[in-house]
Amino acid sequence: MRSRDDIGLEIIRILKACEGGYASGQALSLELGVSRTAVWKHIKLLKKAGFLIEAIPSKGYRLDSSSLPFNDIEVSSSLSTEFIGRKIFFYQSLDSTNIRAYELGRGGCAEGTAVIADSQTNGKGRVGRRWESLPGVNLYTSIVLKPPVPPQSANNLTFLSAVALAESVSHFIRRRPSVKWPNDVLVDGRKIAGILLEMDSEADRVHFVVVGIGVNLNMKEEMFPESLRNTATSVMEKAGEAVDRAEFARSLYSSMGKWYKIYLKEGFAPVLDEWRGYFEAEGRPVKVISFNRTVAGICAGVDRDGALLVRTPSGKVERVVSGDVETAR
Amino acid sequence: MRSRDDIGLEIIRILKACEGGYASGQALSLELGVSRTAVWKHIKLLKKAGFLIEAIPSKGYRLDSSSLPFNDIEVSSSLSTEFIGRKIFFYQSLDSTNIRAYELGRGGCAEGTAVIADSQTNGKGRVGRRWESLPGVNLYTSIVLKPPVPPQSANNLTFLSAVALAESVSHFIRRRPSVKWPNDVLVDGRKIAGILLEMDSEADRVHFVVVGIGVNLNMKEEMFPESLRNTATSVMEKAGEAVDRAEFARSLYSSMGKWYKIYLKEGFAPVLDEWRGYFEAEGRPVKVISFNRTVAGICAGVDRDGALLVRTPSGKVERVVSGDVETAR
Repeated sequence: MRSRDDIGLEIIRILKACEGGYASGQALSLELGVSRTAVWKHIKLLKKAGFLIEAIPSKGYRLDSSSLPFNDIEVSSSLSTEFIGRKIFFYQSLDSTNIRAYELGRGGCAEGTAVIADSQTNGKGRVGRRWESLPGVNLYTSIVLKPPVPPQSANNLTFLSAVALAESVSHFIRRRPSVKWPNDVLVDGRKIAGILLEMDSEADRVHFVVVGIGVNLNMKEEMFPESLRNTATSVMEKAGEAVDRAEFARSLYSSMGKWYKIYLKEGFAPVLDEWRGYFEAEGRPVKVISFNRTVAGICAGVDRDGALLVRTPSGKVERVVSGDVETAR
Repeated sequence: MRSRDDIGLEIIRILKACEGGYASGQALSLELGVSRTAVWKHIKLLKKAGFLIEAIPSKGYRLDSSSLPFNDIEVSSSLSTEFIGRKIFFYQSLDSTNIRAYELGRGGCAEGTAVIADSQTNGKGRVGRRWESLPGVNLYTSIVLKPPVPPQSANNLTFLSAVALAESVSHFIRRRPSVKWPNDVLVDGRKIAGILLEMDSEADRVHFVVVGIGVNLNMKEEMFPESLRNTATSVMEKAGEAVDRAEFARSLYSSMGKWYKIYLKEGFAPVLDEWRGYFEAEGRPVKVISFNRTVAGICAGVDRDGALLVRTPSGKVERVVSGDVETAR
């Protein structure tokens, strides 16, 4: 049984396939197996959802692609992934996409289910921090994955998501960003995106992981809170032009889908190798604060589990599994 | 502000303190700071909850302790722990105590909050297995803990719970049980209790852990399903008499509280040492099935993280972090 949204989605797919041409009401009605009146009703709903659809009695319907809304139908209608984002829950405002995705995960949602919010009232950063989440400009999304791994390995997906994020950002700004251990993406040393991984597991296995991602897309410098102005940037600032949020979301889901497939087939090594290509702190002085312990020294890279290696002045290499890193620049 | 249950709990505490003697309505009214009519109403509720309370106009109220109900008030009224089980959610029937405790954890409940169900309709065993959960005979409880550790260490609490369980079981059967790696307690090679640990975490830290515990208390051999009859036993079978379920729950909470305090202060080592004292498989042939891999050899104990060590015929010692163990007997 198709839901109302499924038919709307199919209409948008058909209109997009017409590439600015007209699709007659009769053609749509035949294609979708619903009455012409039903088609007309769905078109009305789509217009309400922000799609600019022109209707001319003799010709049919035409989609104006110059201005598309940001919602689940728009993200889904051009998506090429196998399962990431095949089901999207879209909200104008949400406390936190991670909280909602977690609920969906607990409820047994399909793997790849994604949540998007235009804005968050209580966006979550790492270790209980807030993530500023303005409406209308950025991407806040959380994806439910169910990797068949023990909880010790769940963190692999932080690296995987960082790789996917770096790949998508580089596609839009036409430069390679860098990754900051363990879960940020930077451009010119400023944060452009962050990842918050949460999981539901038992001792032996992960039930599901929620990958929460926040990307600064169309933030202008002056929109950042004072405290972040010197440490944050956005894709728009670096690309020199506004970014279509739905297009970015699709690019991200597609990149995540690609790397997730590699991960399931070949394990963590190829993902981590790719991540290392974006990691620039190796050989530089670093200071890590981890569980009330500070480790300072020269970064010696990451080991095969993704733990940070720090060569301290004594020559010993310390292994850090979590914490906050400061890099001398 | 005290809830209705709090006043009921205080009345039971006072009546218990009278050790079979009478507490007058006036004394209770003064002690609790409520009217005598209120006292009478609470007594009525307590009777409904299964407490046998005798009321004699000239003397007052008296609790018949020879038959106490199994519920949250009864468990709480004689509890000596600091925070484990200070708040108990009791249900006659529940899908799964772990599911309910997880919800409470997500909702931000206090550490130590416990759930007890007289029976479970969908009791959870490890890796998606069912846990048979008959009404009226056993203990099914889940406890929410918030250890300040990374998710890699959460499994420590499985060992801690096994130690607490073994301690409580030995108190009732007056013999030392053994532990089966990673999360069962056995007597004479038969399972008497099991643990299912689930957690909510991010990559760096655990938000909370749910320790789910099922103990076969008053099961007679013929009550076990056919498939378990040769591999399971109960405290009653081994003690030779029925066990008071509330008393067992209190003993378990108290032992968990003791070990949890040691764990927070001194780390995992003393907990694991204690666990090793109950572990009898060392030096014996074992076969472990873990993530579709079978490791067979002689058990060489557990390492400091609790991983099972198996010396294979080639002489190599394999480290197994999760799985099912078969011991040759």
